Amino acid sequence: MQRVQLHEIMRPESQARPGRLLRLLHHAMTVAGIGVVLADSVEEWREHYAAALGAVFYLVSAFFAAAFLVRLIAAPADPRAAHHSPWQARWSYLASLGGVFDLLAALPGPLRLATGAPDAMLCGIVWVFKFVRYAPGLAGLERVVRRARQPLFSVLLGFLVVILASASLEYLFERHAEPDKFGSIPAALWWAIATVTTTGYGDSVPGTPPGRVLAGAVMVCGILVLALSSGILATGFAEEMRRYAFLRTWNIVAKVPFFRQVGASVIAEVAWLLRPLNVPAGAVVVRRGEPGDCMYFIATGAVEIRLPSEPLRLGDGDFFGEIALLTGTPRTATVVTVEPSTLLRLDIVEFRDLMGRRPDLARVILEAAGRRIEASVASPVAGSEQRLGSDAPA
Amino acid sequence: MQRVQLHEIMRPESQARPGRLLRLLHHAMTVAGIGVVLADSVEEWREHYAAALGAVFYLVSAFFAAAFLVRLIAAPADPRAAHHSPWQARWSYLASLGGVFDLLAALPGPLRLATGAPDAMLCGIVWVFKFVRYAPGLAGLERVVRRARQPLFSVLLGFLVVILASASLEYLFERHAEPDKFGSIPAALWWAIATVTTTGYGDSVPGTPPGRVLAGAVMVCGILVLALSSGILATGFAEEMRRYAFLRTWNIVAKVPFFRQVGASVIAEVAWLLRPLNVPAGAVVVRRGEPGDCMYFIATGAVEIRLPSEPLRLGDGDFFGEIALLTGTPRTATVVTVEPSTLLRLDIVEFRDLMGRRPDLARVILEAAGRRIEASVASPVAGSEQRLGSDAPA
Amino acid sequence: MQRVQLHEIMRPESQARPGRLLRLLHHAMTVAGIGVVLADSVEEWREHYAAALGAVFYLVSAFFAAAFLVRLIAAPADPRAAHHSPWQARWSYLASLGGVFDLLAALPGPLRLATGAPDAMLCGIVWVFKFVRYAPGLAGLERVVRRARQPLFSVLLGFLVVILASASLEYLFERHAEPDKFGSIPAALWWAIATVTTTGYGDSVPGTPPGRVLAGAVMVCGILVLALSSGILATGFAEEMRRYAFLRTWNIVAKVPFFRQVGASVIAEVAWLLRPLNVPAGAVVVRRGEPGDCMYFIATGAVEIRLPSEPLRLGDGDFFGEIALLTGTPRTATVVTVEPSTLLRLDIVEFRDLMGRRPDLARVILEAAGRRIEASVASPVAGSEQRLGSDAPA
Amino acid sequence: MQRVQLHEIMRPESQARPGRLLRLLHHAMTVAGIGVVLADSVEEWREHYAAALGAVFYLVSAFFAAAFLVRLIAAPADPRAAHHSPWQARWSYLASLGGVFDLLAALPGPLRLATGAPDAMLCGIVWVFKFVRYAPGLAGLERVVRRARQPLFSVLLGFLVVILASASLEYLFERHAEPDKFGSIPAALWWAIATVTTTGYGDSVPGTPPGRVLAGAVMVCGILVLALSSGILATGFAEEMRRYAFLRTWNIVAKVPFFRQVGASVIAEVAWLLRPLNVPAGAVVVRRGEPGDCMYFIATGAVEIRLPSEPLRLGDGDFFGEIALLTGTPRTATVVTVEPSTLLRLDIVEFRDLMGRRPDLARVILEAAGRRIEASVASPVAGSEQRLGSDAPA
Repeated sequence: MQRVQLHEIMRPESQARPGRLLRLLHHAMTVAGIGVVLADSVEEWREHYAAALGAVFYLVSAFFAAAFLVRLIAAPADPRAAHHSPWQARWSYLASLGGVFDLLAALPGPLRLATGAPDAMLCGIVWVFKFVRYAPGLAGLERVVRRARQPLFSVLLGFLVVILASASLEYLFERHAEPDKFGSIPAALWWAIATVTTTGYGDSVPGTPPGRVLAGAVMVCGILVLALSSGILATGFAEEMRRYAFLRTWNIVAKVPFFRQVGASVIAEVAWLLRPLNVPAGAVVVRRGEPGDCMYFIATGAVEIRLPSEPLRLGDGDFFGEIALLTGTPRTATVVTVEPSTLLRLDIVEFRDLMGRRPDLARVILEAAGRRIEASVASPVAGSEQRLGSDAPA
Repeated sequence: MQRVQLHEIMRPESQARPGRLLRLLHHAMTVAGIGVVLADSVEEWREHYAAALGAVFYLVSAFFAAAFLVRLIAAPADPRAAHHSPWQARWSYLASLGGVFDLLAALPGPLRLATGAPDAMLCGIVWVFKFVRYAPGLAGLERVVRRARQPLFSVLLGFLVVILASASLEYLFERHAEPDKFGSIPAALWWAIATVTTTGYGDSVPGTPPGRVLAGAVMVCGILVLALSSGILATGFAEEMRRYAFLRTWNIVAKVPFFRQVGASVIAEVAWLLRPLNVPAGAVVVRRGEPGDCMYFIATGAVEIRLPSEPLRLGDGDFFGEIALLTGTPRTATVVTVEPSTLLRLDIVEFRDLMGRRPDLARVILEAAGRRIEASVASPVAGSEQRLGSDAPA
Repeated sequence: MQRVQLHEIMRPESQARPGRLLRLLHHAMTVAGIGVVLADSVEEWREHYAAALGAVFYLVSAFFAAAFLVRLIAAPADPRAAHHSPWQARWSYLASLGGVFDLLAALPGPLRLATGAPDAMLCGIVWVFKFVRYAPGLAGLERVVRRARQPLFSVLLGFLVVILASASLEYLFERHAEPDKFGSIPAALWWAIATVTTTGYGDSVPGTPPGRVLAGAVMVCGILVLALSSGILATGFAEEMRRYAFLRTWNIVAKVPFFRQVGASVIAEVAWLLRPLNVPAGAVVVRRGEPGDCMYFIATGAVEIRLPSEPLRLGDGDFFGEIALLTGTPRTATVVTVEPSTLLRLDIVEFRDLMGRRPDLARVILEAAGRRIEASVASPVAGSEQRLGSDAPA
Repeated sequence: MQRVQLHEIMRPESQARPGRLLRLLHHAMTVAGIGVVLADSVEEWREHYAAALGAVFYLVSAFFAAAFLVRLIAAPADPRAAHHSPWQARWSYLASLGGVFDLLAALPGPLRLATGAPDAMLCGIVWVFKFVRYAPGLAGLERVVRRARQPLFSVLLGFLVVILASASLEYLFERHAEPDKFGSIPAALWWAIATVTTTGYGDSVPGTPPGRVLAGAVMVCGILVLALSSGILATGFAEEMRRYAFLRTWNIVAKVPFFRQVGASVIAEVAWLLRPLNVPAGAVVVRRGEPGDCMYFIATGAVEIRLPSEPLRLGDGDFFGEIALLTGTPRTATVVTVEPSTLLRLDIVEFRDLMGRRPDLARVILEAAGRRIEASVASPVAGSEQRLGSDAPA
């Protein structure tokens, strides 16, 4: 049981208080570690603040070593390791990319102790990779690169061909004019790469007319290579982000009874349109008098509609906020969460598009809104927001 | 009442004459203010034209201070502030981004008067932000960045990791060869950022073979980072623009009786295709004899079709210009607005695509066009453009 | 009548022989003119080849002057000018962008004759714009920029704000350290623009720590600005190209009886998929034995299928090449045009996608192919490609 | 027969063992050849290792000469040459792009033998193009450039106009201030191209105020040109990749009986969604206990489901892995290929989207999954994965 708690606390996505505190400590340690490594490389700071820098360095090292050990011990509690024995689970953690980096992050301290070399502190630069685990988009990035590996490989090959060919030609044209810059193909390669990437340091620049004409062509190639890589990665990344959002939303939408009632095919469709939102208890979701540009479905949790007379409570599968979208008036009441809730937000653009394309969904929402408006006109106190998707009487 | 008028005049989107004049004055003041700050930084101009520069500086300062006060007084007239008390409304204006910048723009003059420091004039550079309020796309830009914040954050993190790691390695490779350029990691960071962004100043350039190989890899990373940021922002921005246009068009289309007649689902569909157009009275919309590449729906306002015999007047919900699209002939008559009108323009590409996909809409337009052509053949004088969507006799 | 012929010959899109010859001469003259201007700017060439350069210069000038006069005379023959009087037509040509450039191109010669200034030859650089009239995509480019003017304007404004703000701050940080590079805001602006665009000449580089931190931020902004402009223009351009292709194809498809038979809604759909192709008489369209990756519809013209026995002729509205797509075998016969023809090419990808989505179209094509294969099996000589869409007997 | 085998072995896509070995040797030879050319250009290496470099050079030359001859002999075995006589086939190989490069790659050795010039070794740089044949995406790249040639041509023309116009103006502004850098238009062109491409060497930089204002404008143009080329190529490339993947998948999907049963129109639709996968015999496709994020269809080959009791064999047209997608539980069994197989992978995102849009397909998969789960509950040993699309009893 303890292992499971440890594992939960160490998870980068943990939402509980101890997990969040640990994450904060982790980030502070990483920043401190990188700061120490940077400061230590400046001669005068290294001389003046040797003791302080060393102390922080060992502190950070110790923290990451401890974090590594805890993760190793808690590895069997990982749900992905459910079918393994504890030692197999530990081994597969060690063999994973995250495990390798955790181990590397634990090493700079012991290494410096063992070797005593002052440069050992430089190894602490591996701590910069500790941030990576907390970047949610990087996993997607990896998948994009893996999927686009064939066209990317082609572009890089074209890149290589352009660089080698242009360096060889430039060597031919310039070797007598500037023997120190273009005296060999490897030397000319330095010029070629700085030119194709349009970096253009300007430390080696061709001077002969044919050399300059070639250089102009190489620069234009550089732009085209840039354009192609850009296109390949950009398209793939946008697609991957969309897929990731769909999956996350689908998992939530599929559990909402309201959508299941309207029909199975609506789930896949609205999962492309809704945006899930985790809201803590007591947060104001919509505020009376503000313009309304979205409506909400409650996936889990509960909200309270602050009506003049008495508050009205809505729960799982209910929706609210549609009246402002239909009538164009400002919000008629403030809505506050009373539990930590997962809401699904439908923006006005998607709302209007959806109303046109799904008459079945439109009818359900319009009927509910009609009843709510009617009720609020009949007795403005009683129920300006009625429950739907549950059999509660008005 | 006066407050409401003041607020209306100060709105950046105001279309009335006083609002437009004020906007012009505002832009002139901003340009003058920036010009003064720039000129004042050039030593010889500061010496020769001190009096003139000071005068313009105080004039611009006074203008922005006055604008700030008027906006503060008129704040309760803002419709978004409808549910607040006047002082609450003023406070929420002060706390908004626009309010903060308005206040900042009012300060340079008083500050210079108070301190007497000649450099105080430099504060006037904040006036450059006064343009921002008038850039309609910037709000969209903000939303794009907010939505794409997760992938953008990942890219910037990758950026940071690449810069820190490459600076550390380059420091290792080059610190003995070029101690003044790569003598510490912070110094190497300067090289790293200029290289990853492919700026390539060329003031610090690695010279050792491993240093150059690393630099080549860093340049290629720079291109990939560029490509990724490009993809993330570009996709998001294009999407946001499309959404913004849809919303604006939907609000107009939903009020046109013609589309409401054809069916509810057509509104969302055509809102993606039409482009709203504000036309002042007396403007020529189509000219007889020109090729026709679009048709128009009248959302509000009225136009006059200049027929040989007597002009024909069309009003809200009518359409015109479809005959040229259907027959491929040039425009058969000139059409002029007789009131300030909001027209909805349907381009030929979308027209043809829509005719294929929406047979119901196609039938209505084709029937109307058929009747009009028939009428113009029968009595070319009487009614070459007939009214539709209203029961007016031909 | 003569005017109409002149106008037709001068049209950039003219396909007739005299028009093509004139176009060739026009391009040769433009290249010669630009070459002369370039050569004349090199001191030693100007001295050695003064006479030759002058002769070519006047020849090119005379050509463009003559072209301008002919265009002016022929202007009333322009179909767009049909509703004007001849002088109105000439005036509207003069007032158009093309007319202004034609006039400018006629001026360098007279100007040099009149002033005698040697630098007058430099005016010939306007001839570079003569190419623009022949670039078919530039009109689309103009429309893209016009449509995206609002977001582009916002990006350029953001650009301006970044440049002005960064130059002012850098002036603050660096003015004492490098007074010759950052001694005034205008001087710092030079650094700022070279940095934001990631050009990075390296002639003025900040040296103080805060100046360098700011410079790093400015470089990253540069990348983001690049990314945004890229996104805005790229999306718009791709869209505009697609629209242009649709329109051009629709105009051809709408005249093909075959598609009109299948149903009206199919025209808009296939217009997105087909690519029109102008083929001269006697060209080989498909060659026996080659793999087949597309089929063709004949919009206008006629082709001959070279069968072993006797050739089969197909005309307007027929199609061919579908058997290779359906069976996966190589082409069974060579097909040659016998008249200048306009073919509509359907690629294998779109063919397969369309077969799935339009069962009605699929049925017609499959039936025809079935009959053809049957016939070729029954009597391989007689009719391996049968006519369709015409009542000709097999 | 021997020719066919030779041709098969030399094909870049050959999957058989001799073909793969030859490919490896080919790549090693190419790398060695390029290495020798690079090393030979460095003076001191050329002097010290002349013999070794020469030996490797002749070895590589001999290899490529032999490869060229074998390809020439085997050319008639190329299926694309099926309708030609052997000598025609050889000629068309020689005339193809690949043939020309193969010939060029065979020449450096003989050339050096014949001329004896030490620089002849430099010709070996053509070997860098030998990689190109093995880059699968380059054919697509060629098609993209061919399709986008009109807009690309426009952009390059605009590029040319900007460069020529800016060089001429900068020559006017700067020729007296910096006669060695801007003394002629050709000299100024060098500056212009380095600036428009945002390379910015910094070797020639304008110094006068108007020259700098112009330079700023040219840099911004550079960014816009970059943005436009980027957009044109990126859109085209992404589209081409998608088309290529569709075609490859369609050819596989169309042979799977399961999809043919569901209906013809489903083939085109799922061909956009599935990803083909070549798996050797004995590979683990899914592993018991892992989370499931995709399902598989077997196009050709066979897999074994490792159930506790006895393994279950699935063959052509069967599918597996759908239970994890439907229930959200980890994989219930390990699946291993027993023959080299072609699988079609359906990712969870596309699975869920497809289930919503194609109720017919959904029903078939749901029914099969229901029967499998029922069977595994009734007798967990017997058949937790049942066959479908074949009449095998449970």
